[in-house]
Amino acid sequence: MILPGLAAKYQANLLDSVIPFWVRHSVDWEQGGYFTCLDREGNVYDPRKYVWLQGRQIWMFSRMYNQVEQRPEWLKIAEHGMRFLLQHARDAQGRYYFRLARDGSPSFFQRKPYSAVFAVMALAEYARTGAGPEYRDAAVSLFWQVVEWIRNPALLGREALPGQPSFRSLADSIVIAKMALEIADFDTDTRISALMGTCLDEALLHHEPTRDILLEFRGGGPNARLFPEGRLFNPGHSVEAAWLLWLLAEKTGRTGDLPIIERVLEGSLTFGWDSEYGGLCYFMDIENRPLLQLEASMKLWWPHAEALYAAVLAYARKKDQRWLTWLERIDEYSFRNFDDPDFGEWFGYRDRQGNLTHSLKGNHYKGCFHAPRALLLSWKTLEAA
Amino acid sequence: MILPGLAAKYQANLLDSVIPFWVRHSVDWEQGGYFTCLDREGNVYDPRKYVWLQGRQIWMFSRMYNQVEQRPEWLKIAEHGMRFLLQHARDAQGRYYFRLARDGSPSFFQRKPYSAVFAVMALAEYARTGAGPEYRDAAVSLFWQVVEWIRNPALLGREALPGQPSFRSLADSIVIAKMALEIADFDTDTRISALMGTCLDEALLHHEPTRDILLEFRGGGPNARLFPEGRLFNPGHSVEAAWLLWLLAEKTGRTGDLPIIERVLEGSLTFGWDSEYGGLCYFMDIENRPLLQLEASMKLWWPHAEALYAAVLAYARKKDQRWLTWLERIDEYSFRNFDDPDFGEWFGYRDRQGNLTHSLKGNHYKGCFHAPRALLLSWKTLEAA
Repeated sequence: MILPGLAAKYQANLLDSVIPFWVRHSVDWEQGGYFTCLDREGNVYDPRKYVWLQGRQIWMFSRMYNQVEQRPEWLKIAEHGMRFLLQHARDAQGRYYFRLARDGSPSFFQRKPYSAVFAVMALAEYARTGAGPEYRDAAVSLFWQVVEWIRNPALLGREALPGQPSFRSLADSIVIAKMALEIADFDTDTRISALMGTCLDEALLHHEPTRDILLEFRGGGPNARLFPEGRLFNPGHSVEAAWLLWLLAEKTGRTGDLPIIERVLEGSLTFGWDSEYGGLCYFMDIENRPLLQLEASMKLWWPHAEALYAAVLAYARKKDQRWLTWLERIDEYSFRNFDDPDFGEWFGYRDRQGNLTHSLKGNHYKGCFHAPRALLLSWKTLEAA
Repeated sequence: MILPGLAAKYQANLLDSVIPFWVRHSVDWEQGGYFTCLDREGNVYDPRKYVWLQGRQIWMFSRMYNQVEQRPEWLKIAEHGMRFLLQHARDAQGRYYFRLARDGSPSFFQRKPYSAVFAVMALAEYARTGAGPEYRDAAVSLFWQVVEWIRNPALLGREALPGQPSFRSLADSIVIAKMALEIADFDTDTRISALMGTCLDEALLHHEPTRDILLEFRGGGPNARLFPEGRLFNPGHSVEAAWLLWLLAEKTGRTGDLPIIERVLEGSLTFGWDSEYGGLCYFMDIENRPLLQLEASMKLWWPHAEALYAAVLAYARKKDQRWLTWLERIDEYSFRNFDDPDFGEWFGYRDRQGNLTHSLKGNHYKGCFHAPRALLLSWKTLEAA
């Protein structure tokens, strides 16, 4: 009885609260694309268009259309975002901006590949709505371009300098896994399954065996632990990586990796959970040394959204009571702190003790993505379990 | 009796707590320069050298030597930092890195002029220790280079994009004022006093008359208030700008500007003070709309250090009871929240309610600067009052 109840709860939160918020408030029908800087009630407080969040929302509405119901409204919103993205998000060299003016003219370029990562996801899921094969081909070709940018950051203007330890980020493995899972079914290129294997191997190199967590950075040489990067643990990333790797291991038939992935998920939740005030910490130093990030002790919505689905997945696969215990704990914390029944969508930011620090629903990094994705994946996984 | 008591308190905090912390823990006698990532007790948790803070500490120890006492130890520490800065901080084009490895090899380049700003201050104050005229000349020539970088950010790789409103930052006026006040006495160039006048005019263009504050950005066109930048108020910056402009107005004989500068100082403290929990807010939106900065509601040490000296200066000049009231309020909040009698130097970061979020004494932005500068300036100003 617990599982159908949770499935219905997540379905209702997704369909009656989260998606309607973005349908009502985010679409800029006048100048194209999506507003994401929306206050609690949905009013726009910055009209610019943030490219990560354009791609993520196209992906989300395409996915809703593909997996929930073929509502013309959802497809129209996805199309609307896709048109804006294709028309405005790229510079002459094919690199993606971070921020555009309301009308689409370029406003800021970030020396990172993530705008393009979410464009790959958008193109891939949009292709499955019945859009032409050109979207599928564009997704695959941009995917390989992003892999190249990740391997060689100097291509985006971020030269490697000789004095910096050669850290590799878990975020890079996460985004490659995300993209690869999106385009794997197109089966256009045998290199993709090979890359999924490499991605799994590389992500597991982040494993820190004492606590069974994935560290945020690997490499960095024998003195890596002298640096904050070498000691950094981001519980939300570690948990998100765990469920992505779980799906990747299933997809590639590497079921022998599942036990360590399950241990990483449990270790990340256990070490990342704030035993005093509840919730997942944002950043931690594994030696409990100082952190450079001022927001380190805050509680953010997205690690909880990722943890919710990760616990659902683990429970659906293992049917083990301890996963149900984690699921109930994360569900209780998340809905108590982030759900907003009055105006829809989730709050994003609380301090360590749980005081709301920002009442906004979206900004330059929070859009229509983590909460609705977790709700959709959790609902569908519980329904199928 | 109040003023001598406060002067003695600031002198003691500077000489017995703050400066000894940096003398004991920050100097890397083995590989040069200063560590600044120091935990509460002074242990190094990141051995890299952050260039803003190299320049700031050279300035501070030179200033101590020049204005407090000619202690050979202080000069030796300043020399030690200067050698490292000159040897390692610049690239082949003369631009300054943001971060160096412990041994000085380059580790990160930030597309901003601030590393060089603090190098100008370091060179200028170090020149006054009796170092050769080449330091004075280097300060002046780097000063003009930085002014050029501020006017044309594309020179540092930050191309202006057509979709971004043309905001001008108060930080730019603040740093030009800081540098100009340092090199004005060298009197090498009549353009400097002209530039100080321009700087005063430009900073006052940030004035928001309803609240008598300086907004963080000006320009941005008729729709500037649609953007978070156009509504942003940074109380610490506004207060720091107020005392710098006060000194600039005195220096340039523009005493007619003093009344508005005094009003700005009072307005910034009044609007920036958290009436519920005390202390100066870090970031505010003047229309009370959402803020993009996650740390917006935190309480940081540096706005309080700046406010302390600003209130001292205003009281010393005006002898008005309301300035003494502000001074006592800021002094009480600062010493209760940031002073650390056990291990020296000030704490840096609390949440809105006043809980300590970070016990560190230094990081990549906090070094030997705001607290000791405010203490030295306040002590000397009160003593002379």
